[in-house]
Amino acid sequence: MLSTLIELQRLKRLDRTGWTLRGLPNGTESVASHSFGVSVTAMLLADKCAAQGVAVDVEKVLRIALLHDWAEVRVGDMPRTATLYFGSDARKQAETTAFLDVVDMVDADGSYAELYSDYERRESLEARLVKAADVLDLLIQVYALERAGARGLDEFWEVAEKPDFNLDGTAEQIVQELLDSILKARSELHNNG
Amino acid sequence: MLSTLIELQRLKRLDRTGWTLRGLPNGTESVASHSFGVSVTAMLLADKCAAQGVAVDVEKVLRIALLHDWAEVRVGDMPRTATLYFGSDARKQAETTAFLDVVDMVDADGSYAELYSDYERRESLEARLVKAADVLDLLIQVYALERAGARGLDEFWEVAEKPDFNLDGTAEQIVQELLDSILKARSELHNNG
Amino acid sequence: MLSTLIELQRLKRLDRTGWTLRGLPNGTESVASHSFGVSVTAMLLADKCAAQGVAVDVEKVLRIALLHDWAEVRVGDMPRTATLYFGSDARKQAETTAFLDVVDMVDADGSYAELYSDYERRESLEARLVKAADVLDLLIQVYALERAGARGLDEFWEVAEKPDFNLDGTAEQIVQELLDSILKARSELHNNG
Amino acid sequence: MLSTLIELQRLKRLDRTGWTLRGLPNGTESVASHSFGVSVTAMLLADKCAAQGVAVDVEKVLRIALLHDWAEVRVGDMPRTATLYFGSDARKQAETTAFLDVVDMVDADGSYAELYSDYERRESLEARLVKAADVLDLLIQVYALERAGARGLDEFWEVAEKPDFNLDGTAEQIVQELLDSILKARSELHNNG
Amino acid sequence: MLSTLIELQRLKRLDRTGWTLRGLPNGTESVASHSFGVSVTAMLLADKCAAQGVAVDVEKVLRIALLHDWAEVRVGDMPRTATLYFGSDARKQAETTAFLDVVDMVDADGSYAELYSDYERRESLEARLVKAADVLDLLIQVYALERAGARGLDEFWEVAEKPDFNLDGTAEQIVQELLDSILKARSELHNNG
Amino acid sequence: MLSTLIELQRLKRLDRTGWTLRGLPNGTESVASHSFGVSVTAMLLADKCAAQGVAVDVEKVLRIALLHDWAEVRVGDMPRTATLYFGSDARKQAETTAFLDVVDMVDADGSYAELYSDYERRESLEARLVKAADVLDLLIQVYALERAGARGLDEFWEVAEKPDFNLDGTAEQIVQELLDSILKARSELHNNG
Repeated sequence: MLSTLIELQRLKRLDRTGWTLRGLPNGTESVASHSFGVSVTAMLLADKCAAQGVAVDVEKVLRIALLHDWAEVRVGDMPRTATLYFGSDARKQAETTAFLDVVDMVDADGSYAELYSDYERRESLEARLVKAADVLDLLIQVYALERAGARGLDEFWEVAEKPDFNLDGTAEQIVQELLDSILKARSELHNNG
Repeated sequence: MLSTLIELQRLKRLDRTGWTLRGLPNGTESVASHSFGVSVTAMLLADKCAAQGVAVDVEKVLRIALLHDWAEVRVGDMPRTATLYFGSDARKQAETTAFLDVVDMVDADGSYAELYSDYERRESLEARLVKAADVLDLLIQVYALERAGARGLDEFWEVAEKPDFNLDGTAEQIVQELLDSILKARSELHNNG
Repeated sequence: MLSTLIELQRLKRLDRTGWTLRGLPNGTESVASHSFGVSVTAMLLADKCAAQGVAVDVEKVLRIALLHDWAEVRVGDMPRTATLYFGSDARKQAETTAFLDVVDMVDADGSYAELYSDYERRESLEARLVKAADVLDLLIQVYALERAGARGLDEFWEVAEKPDFNLDGTAEQIVQELLDSILKARSELHNNG
Repeated sequence: MLSTLIELQRLKRLDRTGWTLRGLPNGTESVASHSFGVSVTAMLLADKCAAQGVAVDVEKVLRIALLHDWAEVRVGDMPRTATLYFGSDARKQAETTAFLDVVDMVDADGSYAELYSDYERRESLEARLVKAADVLDLLIQVYALERAGARGLDEFWEVAEKPDFNLDGTAEQIVQELLDSILKARSELHNNG
Repeated sequence: MLSTLIELQRLKRLDRTGWTLRGLPNGTESVASHSFGVSVTAMLLADKCAAQGVAVDVEKVLRIALLHDWAEVRVGDMPRTATLYFGSDARKQAETTAFLDVVDMVDADGSYAELYSDYERRESLEARLVKAADVLDLLIQVYALERAGARGLDEFWEVAEKPDFNLDGTAEQIVQELLDSILKARSELHNNG
Repeated sequence: MLSTLIELQRLKRLDRTGWTLRGLPNGTESVASHSFGVSVTAMLLADKCAAQGVAVDVEKVLRIALLHDWAEVRVGDMPRTATLYFGSDARKQAETTAFLDVVDMVDADGSYAELYSDYERRESLEARLVKAADVLDLLIQVYALERAGARGLDEFWEVAEKPDFNLDGTAEQIVQELLDSILKARSELHNNG
């Protein structure tokens, strides 16, 4: 178990390249910090869903959120443009193989592999909620950076215009409400700035 | 929910003061990165416990691990010595009140407050497992820093000599095994260095 | 004397949490850098006071300015919100005890302790001038950060609106003049930005 | 031409992931800094080759050295392990396509594309000299980091044991001499440390 | 050769003081990163000149661009104001002597010294093109920083208003076109911001 | 007064080049942090001198310590080697002129200029004590960095072998005692490391 944990420590230092490539300082956000943000966002969303009667397995949500970026310890935090050049399928395959190698010593029953596969294919409601949390944590980070003076991050907001999280009913509504409140906060920020 | 998430974003940038006070560079580890490390460590420990027949609520473990440091967004990451001057009780009380204020808008049923209170008092097995993960992630971080050349961190290892996690049976054994393997890795590091 | 100086070295690396909690990069300002700014500001203010006939002990001003943040090496740079949760009295008491421990080996005659106590209670004119310099250096730092593009620091300016430095006569006037010129510079910055 | 230059500015901030993944601070070395180091090393090597009668086109050497990492502005600085998962061919193909897109507006006659292709295939002596400089600058950086206290970088030295630069005659000898002097310096460093 | 390369490694970490003195974070741009930017800009400019019939020795351009800042490894990156106090001649003389010492072991035939002298006196077309690239890379960096939110950098644009690169004909036109496109991009940035 | 204070803010961000040129991370120590260290060291030394009967003007000591590096805001933190190339006299003259310009608006009676001139010529006991504090703070910083794992800083200790502070009697003894205790601490560090 130790060698796995030592390797995952590396995510604490690995910069999210989206920021440094746009001229923000090194150390703006690590992959580990982002994973924390996604996990917390996913927990709040899932708990709200559950409170409103959606049948959601919160434990599964938290597991997926915590492990969804582990492959980056071997593949790195690839910029979006990298996916264009490698192709989405090649990236998924490489990350999946990397993930399997990372968890090799701690996944005797294959349950982490299964959760990862679920996330990559957005099969379950839980996987789709984590994907929504992944995007929402990104947007809240962009908002926080813009509030602190950063500029040049407009392209991140394009994804927010017509998100496709493949959710429906109450879950979709809860995610959309949070997204709307982010967009409203950003709009107020720029009206006052 | 948004204002809570915006506030928790701040943990991504807040430095763990233990490192900067010992002369390591700013940005060595954020509170959010540490929370990620604790959550992952706790998940692996809890899953191993469950696999060996211990009755442990993994969802509860993950929830506690994710939220156990949220109060720091208002109180800061206090150095150990600060606790000496404020007193352990005053610190606990301040952090508990801060935690309640942080979750005020998202904890309608008081379940986050209950988990936090459980953790502060180390009541349940799950709370005690998270506390063990908190210490183990710290030691793995120290090990990783020492492997990269850092020195002057000996005092962190003192806690490892006679840990008091108040666990027993299989859970204690699993935690002790991980602790032993960390100590062995460190010993090898210094014999080879 | 050496162990005291080694401990105080730590202030060179300790981040002022006010900036990192608002999303500015780690390393924006250390406690030692701030203490330097306060000391310089206090010297200029005190010299101007003296030049205009105010009876002020400049040596005492400089001593207080240099030592007023030494307790932070043990207690950390607590965010404002932390004081709310611990209470102002508890914070003062903790910091005073920490200060006494820090200077234990170099304060045979208790003169540092006396200066610290004076500062904490804002007893003398000199202590009140240092407190004014503490706030003014903060505002000049905020101004410098805003000029370099930082945003989201509005709350720091609230203290500037109705400062209560408990000064009177010429000293009050000199401090107010500097404060007014900072506010004017900031106003021009935002009109031109 | 401007849009190309603006895009290449991003290499000044992009961290080389080899350092951050091994626990060194963010900002240890940017891709642009490394490209500078490779270019300078290549110039010195090529000039020495020319001085000893090797027929080498130094202009071509410098061009290749300056442009050999431009694809990283779109693909990122992939860690070594990433190549294992994507496969060496897929990586080369992705980087080549990315390179072509980067230079699209400034390469009317296709000469940059040709140089890049030459480098990727190590066809010319000039391309092979740049590859040697790429490795030598890496090793000198590792040496400099170790001299400043960094540890845990042993795996970088493995490549130095039996390098395969596919050079011969005088060129091979000149490169080997530099490599030997690096290994000797490192050996002395560790004997004295 | 090794000792020269080890010394030049230091340029990878040396901050350009222009940014830090204006309140931007440490690590904004190293001297090595800037030299890379100048070299790339110079290559694109020189290649365009050559394509349009200007007789330009591109190899010489690249050599000058790569080595023009080597003296800074001993003299540091002096702020503009420093030149005012030392005098332009004293600075040139100090940097020339420093440069000669830096290349002492690798410049048997004095060719690096000659290129440096040419650059310092802006004798050749190649030297003047590198000087233009030096300024243009600076402006593109300022533009990139402003696009990312930085402010307070207006003084850098003054040099752009009436540049004196001492070029004529096609070369002047090509440099001016790039300068104009930078100014246009900046103007659009501020109209949209 | 404000423009002077705004300019001096810049010392909070200006890196001491001694560290970055030796491969330590950006942000290791700012000029402002160092000035704080010198001022504190000078205060403790002067107070001990006074307690043992030396006639020393502590206010003067503190004033000199606080202002002795202000010229660097215009001239930069020149590396030691820079002095070799400019000459010690030219450097002193440039820094003196820069200092006079920095304090132009706040030094109506010329007292800051006089203190600076005293320091540059090491005339008074107070000036010589500050110079000793300048070196001692440097050595304590080196010690602290080495304790945290830094290496390659041996040349800084050479100055400690036969210091020439031009002090005598009790003052010399007090300074030498502190120096000896630093050397002893370092010796123990390396025996244990």
